[in-house]
Amino acid sequence: MQLITDPRAIEEQSMRIIEDHLPDLAMLPAGERAIVKRVVHTTGDLSCAQFIRFHPRAVESGLSALRAGRPILTDVNMVRSGLIKDRLTALGVAVDCLINHPEVVTRARARGTTRAMVAMELGAPQIEGGIIAIGNAPTALFTLCRLISTGRAKPALVVGTPVGFVGAAESKEELISLDIPYITMTGTRGGSTIAAAVINALLLMA
Amino acid sequence: MQLITDPRAIEEQSMRIIEDHLPDLAMLPAGERAIVKRVVHTTGDLSCAQFIRFHPRAVESGLSALRAGRPILTDVNMVRSGLIKDRLTALGVAVDCLINHPEVVTRARARGTTRAMVAMELGAPQIEGGIIAIGNAPTALFTLCRLISTGRAKPALVVGTPVGFVGAAESKEELISLDIPYITMTGTRGGSTIAAAVINALLLMA
Repeated sequence: MQLITDPRAIEEQSMRIIEDHLPDLAMLPAGERAIVKRVVHTTGDLSCAQFIRFHPRAVESGLSALRAGRPILTDVNMVRSGLIKDRLTALGVAVDCLINHPEVVTRARARGTTRAMVAMELGAPQIEGGIIAIGNAPTALFTLCRLISTGRAKPALVVGTPVGFVGAAESKEELISLDIPYITMTGTRGGSTIAAAVINALLLMA
Repeated sequence: MQLITDPRAIEEQSMRIIEDHLPDLAMLPAGERAIVKRVVHTTGDLSCAQFIRFHPRAVESGLSALRAGRPILTDVNMVRSGLIKDRLTALGVAVDCLINHPEVVTRARARGTTRAMVAMELGAPQIEGGIIAIGNAPTALFTLCRLISTGRAKPALVVGTPVGFVGAAESKEELISLDIPYITMTGTRGGSTIAAAVINALLLMA
Protein backbone atom coordinates (compact mmCIF):
# COMPACT_ATOMS: atom_id res chain seq x y z
CA MET A 1 0.00 0.00 0.00
CA GLN A 2 1.15 3.52 -0.86
CA LEU A 3 1.01 5.64 2.29
CA ILE A 4 -0.40 9.09 1.56
CA THR A 5 1.13 11.66 3.90
CA ASP A 6 0.20 14.98 2.30
CA PRO A 7 -2.61 16.36 4.47
CA ARG A 8 -4.48 17.99 1.58
CA ALA A 9 -4.31 14.83 -0.54
CA ILE A 10 -5.61 12.75 2.39
CA GLU A 11 -8.60 15.03 2.88
CA GLU A 12 -9.41 15.17 -0.84
CA GLN A 13 -9.28 11.41 -1.21
CA SER A 14 -11.40 10.98 1.91
CA MET A 15 -14.06 13.34 0.55
CA ARG A 16 -14.07 11.52 -2.83
CA ILE A 17 -14.57 8.17 -1.09
CA ILE A 18 -17.47 9.63 0.90
CA GLU A 19 -19.11 11.02 -2.26
CA ASP A 20 -18.73 7.65 -4.00
CA HIS A 21 -20.39 5.83 -1.12
CA LEU A 22 -23.15 8.38 -0.52
CA PRO A 23 -24.39 9.44 -3.99
CA ASP A 24 -27.61 10.88 -2.49
CA LEU A 25 -25.58 13.71 -0.96
CA ALA A 26 -25.53 15.32 -4.43
CA MET A 27 -29.19 16.26 -3.92
CA LEU A 28 -28.52 18.38 -0.83
CA PRO A 29 -27.84 22.14 -1.02
CA ALA A 30 -24.07 22.75 -1.18
CA GLY A 31 -23.73 23.99 2.41
CA GLU A 32 -25.60 21.07 3.95
CA ARG A 33 -23.67 18.65 1.75
CA ALA A 34 -20.33 20.04 2.97
CA ILE A 35 -21.43 19.63 6.58
CA VAL A 36 -22.65 16.06 6.18
CA LYS A 37 -19.43 15.11 4.38
CA ARG A 38 -17.28 16.57 7.13
CA VAL A 39 -19.22 14.75 9.86
CA VAL A 40 -18.81 11.46 7.99
CA HIS A 41 -15.10 12.26 7.42
CA THR A 42 -14.68 12.93 11.16
CA THR A 43 -16.42 9.79 12.39
CA GLY A 44 -15.27 7.37 9.68
CA ASP A 45 -18.85 6.19 9.67
CA LEU A 46 -21.04 6.44 6.56
CA SER A 47 -24.16 5.58 8.56
CA CYS A 48 -23.93 8.91 10.42
CA ALA A 49 -25.25 10.82 7.43
CA GLN A 50 -28.80 9.57 7.76
CA PHE A 51 -29.26 11.06 11.24
CA ILE A 52 -28.23 14.65 10.49
CA ARG A 53 -31.08 17.20 10.41
CA PHE A 54 -30.99 20.84 9.30
CA HIS A 55 -33.39 23.66 9.98
CA PRO A 56 -33.97 25.29 6.55
CA ARG A 57 -32.18 28.51 7.59
CA ALA A 58 -29.38 26.85 9.58
CA VAL A 59 -26.46 27.11 7.16
CA GLU A 60 -27.29 30.67 6.08
CA SER A 61 -27.75 31.84 9.66
CA GLY A 62 -24.56 30.14 10.88
CA LEU A 63 -22.47 31.57 8.03
CA SER A 64 -23.81 35.08 8.65
CA ALA A 65 -22.90 34.84 12.31
CA LEU A 66 -19.34 33.70 11.55
CA ARG A 67 -18.85 36.34 8.85
CA ALA A 68 -19.98 38.98 11.34
CA GLY A 69 -17.42 37.71 13.87
CA ARG A 70 -20.08 36.69 16.39
CA PRO A 71 -18.89 34.41 19.22
CA ILE A 72 -19.24 30.67 19.71
CA LEU A 73 -20.14 29.06 23.05
CA THR A 74 -19.47 25.34 23.55
CA ASP A 75 -20.68 23.02 26.31
CA VAL A 76 -17.33 21.24 26.75
CA ASN A 77 -13.69 22.06 26.07
CA MET A 78 -13.31 19.16 23.62
CA VAL A 79 -15.59 20.95 21.12
CA ARG A 80 -13.62 24.15 21.51
CA SER A 81 -10.27 22.44 21.06
CA GLY A 82 -11.48 20.70 17.90
CA LEU A 83 -12.22 23.95 16.02
CA ILE A 84 -9.87 25.14 13.25
CA LYS A 85 -7.85 27.91 14.92
CA ASP A 86 -6.65 29.62 11.74
CA ARG A 87 -10.21 30.09 10.51
CA LEU A 88 -11.44 31.39 13.87
CA THR A 89 -8.61 33.94 13.94
CA ALA A 90 -9.17 34.99 10.33
CA LEU A 91 -12.86 35.61 11.01
CA GLY A 92 -12.27 37.22 14.42
CA VAL A 93 -14.53 34.69 16.13
CA ALA A 94 -14.03 34.11 19.87
CA VAL A 95 -14.88 30.75 21.42
CA ASP A 96 -15.89 30.35 25.03
CA CYS A 97 -16.65 27.40 27.28
CA LEU A 98 -17.66 27.89 30.91
CA ILE A 99 -17.58 24.27 32.12
CA ASN A 100 -14.52 24.88 34.34
CA HIS A 101 -15.56 28.40 35.43
CA PRO A 102 -15.28 28.54 39.25
CA GLU A 103 -18.83 29.84 39.62
CA VAL A 104 -20.16 27.01 37.46
CA VAL A 105 -18.30 24.39 39.49
CA THR A 106 -19.57 25.84 42.79
CA ARG A 107 -23.19 26.25 41.68
CA ALA A 108 -23.39 22.80 40.07
CA ARG A 109 -22.02 21.15 43.21
CA ALA A 110 -24.43 23.09 45.42
CA ARG A 111 -27.45 22.14 43.29
CA GLY A 112 -26.36 18.57 42.47
CA THR A 113 -26.76 19.19 38.75
CA THR A 114 -24.36 18.90 35.82
CA ARG A 115 -21.79 21.65 35.27
CA ALA A 116 -22.81 21.68 31.59
CA MET A 117 -26.30 22.77 32.60
CA VAL A 118 -25.14 25.61 34.85
CA ALA A 119 -22.56 26.69 32.26
CA MET A 120 -25.33 27.02 29.66
CA GLU A 121 -27.54 29.06 32.03
CA LEU A 122 -24.64 31.41 32.62
CA GLY A 123 -23.25 31.60 29.09
CA ALA A 124 -26.10 31.27 26.60
CA PRO A 125 -27.77 34.64 27.35
CA GLN A 126 -24.48 36.36 26.37
CA ILE A 127 -24.36 34.77 22.91
CA GLU A 128 -27.02 36.81 21.13
CA GLY A 129 -26.50 36.35 17.39
CA GLY A 130 -23.68 33.82 17.83
CA ILE A 131 -23.46 30.04 17.66
CA ILE A 132 -24.03 27.67 20.57
CA ALA A 133 -22.57 24.19 20.16
CA ILE A 134 -23.50 21.33 22.46
CA GLY A 135 -21.53 18.18 21.74
CA ASN A 136 -21.79 16.30 24.97
CA ALA A 137 -24.45 16.98 27.56
CA PRO A 138 -28.20 16.47 27.00
CA THR A 139 -28.83 18.52 30.15
CA ALA A 140 -27.11 21.48 28.47
CA LEU A 141 -29.35 21.21 25.41
CA PHE A 142 -32.53 20.89 27.51
CA THR A 143 -31.44 24.00 29.43
CA LEU A 144 -30.70 25.89 26.23
CA CYS A 145 -34.07 24.97 24.71
CA ARG A 146 -35.78 26.37 27.82
CA LEU A 147 -33.72 29.58 27.66
CA ILE A 148 -34.60 30.01 23.98
CA SER A 149 -38.30 29.28 24.36
CA THR A 150 -38.55 31.82 27.17
CA GLY A 151 -36.67 34.45 25.17
CA ARG A 152 -33.61 34.52 27.42
CA ALA A 153 -31.18 33.25 24.74
CA LYS A 154 -31.15 34.24 21.08
CA PRO A 155 -28.39 32.39 19.21
CA ALA A 156 -28.18 32.60 15.42
CA LEU A 157 -27.61 28.85 15.29
CA VAL A 158 -27.66 25.90 17.68
CA VAL A 159 -25.43 22.96 16.84
CA GLY A 160 -26.95 20.34 19.11
CA THR A 161 -25.34 16.92 19.02
CA PRO A 162 -25.29 15.71 22.63
CA VAL A 163 -24.74 12.02 23.06
CA GLY A 164 -25.95 9.09 25.12
CA PHE A 165 -28.74 6.88 26.32
CA VAL A 166 -30.15 9.23 28.98
CA GLY A 167 -31.99 12.19 27.50
CA ALA A 168 -29.91 12.85 24.37
CA ALA A 169 -32.53 11.74 21.83
CA GLU A 170 -35.27 13.62 23.69
CA SER A 171 -33.22 16.83 23.98
CA LYS A 172 -32.66 16.81 20.22
CA GLU A 173 -36.37 16.25 19.54
CA GLU A 174 -37.06 19.29 21.70
CA LEU A 175 -34.51 21.34 19.74
CA ILE A 176 -36.19 20.35 16.45
CA SER A 177 -39.58 21.37 17.84
CA LEU A 178 -38.41 24.97 18.33
CA ASP A 179 -38.55 27.01 15.15
CA ILE A 180 -34.98 28.29 15.28
CA PRO A 181 -31.92 27.55 13.14
CA TYR A 182 -30.42 24.23 14.30
CA ILE A 183 -28.18 21.44 13.07
CA THR A 184 -28.52 18.16 14.93
CA MET A 185 -28.08 14.39 14.81
CA THR A 186 -31.18 12.51 15.92
CA GLY A 187 -31.09 9.56 18.31
CA THR A 188 -28.52 8.55 20.89
CA ARG A 189 -25.44 9.28 18.79
CA GLY A 190 -23.47 12.52 18.75
CA GLY A 191 -20.39 13.85 20.50
CA SER A 192 -17.79 16.57 20.61
CA THR A 193 -16.05 15.54 17.39
CA ILE A 194 -19.37 15.77 15.54
CA ALA A 195 -20.26 19.21 16.92
CA ALA A 196 -16.75 20.43 16.05
CA ALA A 197 -17.01 18.95 12.54
CA VAL A 198 -20.26 20.84 11.87
CA ILE A 199 -18.73 24.14 12.93
CA ASN A 200 -15.49 23.45 11.09
CA ALA A 201 -17.43 22.88 7.87
CA LEU A 202 -19.10 26.28 8.42
CA LEU A 203 -15.76 27.92 9.24
CA LEU A 204 -14.30 26.61 5.97
CA MET A 205 -17.25 27.99 3.99
CA ALA A 206 -17.50 31.38 5.74
CA MET B 1 -40.42 12.58 30.96
CA GLN B 2 -38.51 13.03 34.21
CA LEU B 3 -35.30 14.94 33.45
CA ILE B 4 -32.36 13.44 35.37
CA THR B 5 -29.84 16.16 36.18
CA ASP B 6 -27.62 14.51 38.78
CA PRO B 7 -24.42 13.66 36.92
CA ARG B 8 -23.73 10.45 38.84
CA ALA B 9 -27.31 9.22 38.34
CA ILE B 10 -27.05 9.95 34.59
CA GLU B 11 -23.87 7.93 34.26
CA GLU B 12 -25.18 5.04 36.34
CA GLN B 13 -28.39 4.84 34.31
CA SER B 14 -26.43 5.05 31.06
CA MET B 15 -24.16 2.17 32.11
CA ARG B 16 -27.18 0.05 33.13
CA ILE B 17 -28.81 0.64 29.74
CA ILE B 18 -25.59 -0.39 27.99
CA GLU B 19 -25.33 -3.59 30.08
CA ASP B 20 -28.96 -4.44 29.30
CA HIS B 21 -28.39 -4.02 25.55
CA LEU B 22 -25.02 -5.78 25.44
CA PRO B 23 -25.34 -8.86 27.70
CA ASP B 24 -22.22 -10.45 26.12
CA LEU B 25 -20.09 -7.83 27.87
CA ALA B 26 -20.48 -9.88 31.06
CA MET B 27 -18.07 -12.43 29.58
CA LEU B 28 -15.19 -9.95 29.26
CA PRO B 29 -12.57 -9.44 32.02
CA ALA B 30 -13.65 -6.55 34.27
CA GLY B 31 -11.10 -4.05 32.92
CA GLU B 32 -11.95 -4.64 29.28
CA ARG B 33 -15.66 -4.54 30.09
CA ALA B 34 -15.29 -1.12 31.76
CA ILE B 35 -13.47 0.24 28.70
CA VAL B 36 -16.00 -1.07 26.17
CA LYS B 37 -18.86 0.33 28.25
CA ARG B 38 -17.24 3.76 28.44
CA VAL B 39 -16.63 3.87 24.67
CA VAL B 40 -20.27 2.97 24.02
CA HIS B 41 -21.37 5.56 26.62
CA THR B 42 -19.24 8.21 24.88
CA THR B 43 -20.45 7.51 21.33
CA GLY B 44 -24.08 6.69 22.12
CA ASP B 45 -23.61 3.83 19.68
CA LEU B 46 -24.03 0.21 20.78
CA SER B 47 -22.52 -1.05 17.51
CA CYS B 48 -19.11 0.35 18.50
CA ALA B 49 -18.52 -2.49 20.95
CA GLN B 50 -17.93 -5.13 18.27
CA PHE B 51 -14.93 -3.29 16.78
CA ILE B 52 -12.86 -2.85 19.96
CA ARG B 53 -9.79 -5.09 20.23
CA PHE B 54 -7.48 -5.61 23.21
CA HIS B 55 -3.99 -7.03 23.38
CA PRO B 56 -4.11 -9.55 26.28
CA ARG B 57 -1.79 -7.42 28.44
CA ALA B 58 -3.25 -4.02 27.47
CA VAL B 59 -5.33 -3.21 30.56
CA GLU B 60 -2.73 -4.45 33.04
CA SER B 61 0.07 -2.58 31.28
CA GLY B 62 -1.92 0.65 30.97
CA LEU B 63 -2.97 0.57 34.63
CA SER B 64 0.61 -0.03 35.78
CA ALA B 65 1.80 2.95 33.73
CA LEU B 66 -0.86 5.25 35.20
CA ARG B 67 -0.24 4.05 38.77
CA ALA B 68 3.47 4.74 38.28
CA GLY B 69 2.65 8.28 37.13
CA ARG B 70 4.09 7.70 33.63
CA PRO B 71 3.17 10.35 31.03
CA ILE B 72 0.59 10.27 28.23
CA LEU B 73 1.26 11.57 24.71
CA THR B 74 -1.71 12.33 22.43
CA ASP B 75 -1.76 13.01 18.69
CA VAL B 76 -4.25 15.88 18.89
CA ASN B 77 -5.36 18.35 21.55
CA MET B 78 -8.95 17.07 21.49
CA VAL B 79 -7.84 13.80 23.09
CA ARG B 80 -5.91 15.67 25.75
CA SER B 81 -8.77 18.00 26.56
CA GLY B 82 -11.16 15.05 26.92
CA LEU B 83 -9.23 13.39 29.75
CA ILE B 84 -10.52 13.58 33.34
CA LYS B 85 -8.32 16.25 34.95
CA ASP B 86 -8.95 15.29 38.59
CA ARG B 87 -7.77 11.73 37.96
CA LEU B 88 -4.66 12.87 36.06
CA THR B 89 -3.75 15.17 38.93
CA ALA B 90 -4.41 12.55 41.59
CA LEU B 91 -2.14 10.07 39.78
CA GLY B 92 0.50 12.68 38.91
CA VAL B 93 0.22 11.88 35.21
CA ALA B 94 1.35 14.56 32.73
CA VAL B 95 -0.24 14.77 29.27
CA ASP B 96 1.56 16.19 26.28
CA CYS B 97 0.58 16.88 22.66
CA LEU B 98 3.08 18.35 20.21
CA ILE B 99 0.76 19.05 17.26
CA ASN B 100 1.12 22.84 17.67
CA HIS B 101 4.80 22.79 18.67
CA PRO B 102 6.64 25.35 16.48
CA GLU B 103 9.24 22.80 15.37
CA VAL B 104 6.49 20.36 14.34
CA VAL B 105 4.67 23.01 12.33
CA THR B 106 7.88 24.06 10.53
CA ARG B 107 9.09 20.54 9.78
CA ALA B 108 5.69 19.31 8.56
CA ARG B 109 5.34 22.28 6.22
CA ALA B 110 8.87 21.78 4.86
CA ARG B 111 8.28 18.07 4.22
CA GLY B 112 4.65 18.35 3.07
CA THR B 113 3.52 15.76 5.62
CA THR B 114 0.98 15.85 8.41
CA ARG B 115 1.86 17.60 11.66
CA ALA B 116 0.55 14.54 13.51
CA MET B 117 3.26 12.42 11.88
CA VAL B 118 6.09 14.79 12.77
CA ALA B 119 4.70 15.27 16.30
CA MET B 120 4.82 11.50 16.83
CA GLU B 121 8.43 11.23 15.55
CA LEU B 122 9.41 13.96 17.99
CA GLY B 123 7.35 12.90 20.99
CA ALA B 124 7.03 9.10 21.01
CA PRO B 125 10.68 8.32 21.83
CA GLN B 126 10.28 10.38 25.06
CA ILE B 127 7.36 8.30 26.33
CA GLU B 128 9.15 5.14 27.45
CA GLY B 129 6.81 3.24 29.75
CA GLY B 130 3.93 5.68 29.27
CA ILE B 131 0.77 5.67 27.15
CA ILE B 132 0.51 6.96 23.59
CA ALA B 133 -3.00 7.77 22.39
CA ILE B 134 -3.81 8.39 18.73
CA GLY B 135 -7.39 9.43 18.19
CA ASN B 136 -7.25 11.16 14.86
CA ALA B 137 -4.43 10.67 12.37
CA PRO B 138 -3.64 7.34 10.68
CA THR B 139 -0.26 8.83 9.62
CA ALA B 140 0.60 9.24 13.32
CA LEU B 141 -0.20 5.59 14.04
CA PHE B 142 1.80 4.35 11.02
CA THR B 143 4.73 6.45 12.23
CA LEU B 144 4.42 5.13 15.78
CA CYS B 145 4.28 1.50 14.58
CA ARG B 146 7.54 2.07 12.67
CA LEU B 147 9.17 3.71 15.72
CA ILE B 148 8.11 0.76 17.89
CA SER B 149 9.18 -1.97 15.44
CA THR B 150 12.62 -0.37 15.11
CA GLY B 151 12.99 -0.05 18.90
CA ARG B 152 12.91 3.74 18.97
CA ALA B 153 9.69 4.00 21.01
CA LYS B 154 8.73 1.78 23.94
CA PRO B 155 5.32 2.80 25.30
CA ALA B 156 3.61 0.63 27.91
CA LEU B 157 0.34 0.91 25.96
CA VAL B 158 -0.83 2.27 22.61
CA VAL B 159 -4.42 3.45 22.38
CA GLY B 160 -4.81 3.59 18.62
CA THR B 161 -8.19 4.72 17.34
CA PRO B 162 -7.44 6.94 14.32
CA VAL B 163 -10.37 7.55 12.04
CA GLY B 164 -11.23 7.81 8.37
CA PHE B 165 -11.28 6.28 4.93
CA VAL B 166 -7.62 6.86 4.03
CA GLY B 167 -5.26 4.55 5.92
CA ALA B 168 -7.06 4.30 9.28
CA ALA B 169 -8.10 0.64 8.98
CA GLU B 170 -4.66 -0.32 7.66
CA SER B 171 -2.80 1.55 10.41
CA LYS B 172 -4.82 -0.32 13.04
CA GLU B 173 -4.12 -3.69 11.39
CA GLU B 174 -0.44 -2.83 11.57
CA LEU B 175 -0.76 -1.97 15.27
CA ILE B 176 -2.44 -5.33 15.94
CA SER B 177 0.37 -7.14 14.09
CA LEU B 178 2.97 -5.83 16.55
CA ASP B 179 3.12 -7.85 19.75
CA ILE B 180 2.79 -4.92 22.15
CA PRO B 181 -0.01 -3.84 24.48
CA TYR B 182 -2.65 -2.01 22.43
CA ILE B 183 -6.32 -1.07 22.53
CA THR B 184 -7.88 -0.27 19.17
CA MET B 185 -11.09 -0.10 17.15
CA THR B 186 -10.84 -1.91 13.82
CA GLY B 187 -12.04 -0.44 10.54
CA THR B 188 -12.63 3.17 9.50
CA ARG B 189 -14.26 4.31 12.74
CA GLY B 190 -12.50 5.93 15.68
CA GLY B 191 -11.84 9.47 16.84
CA SER B 192 -10.67 11.65 19.69
CA THR B 193 -13.69 11.01 21.90
CA ILE B 194 -13.08 7.26 21.64
CA ALA B 195 -9.37 7.50 22.46
CA ALA B 196 -10.20 9.75 25.42
CA ALA B 197 -12.92 7.36 26.61
CA VAL B 198 -10.49 4.42 26.65
CA ILE B 199 -7.98 6.36 28.74
CA ASN B 200 -10.66 7.78 31.02
CA ALA B 201 -11.87 4.24 31.77
CA LEU B 202 -8.29 3.33 32.72
CA LEU B 203 -7.92 6.53 34.79
CA LEU B 204 -11.07 5.65 36.73
CA MET B 205 -9.77 2.13 37.45
CA ALA B 206 -6.16 3.09 38.32
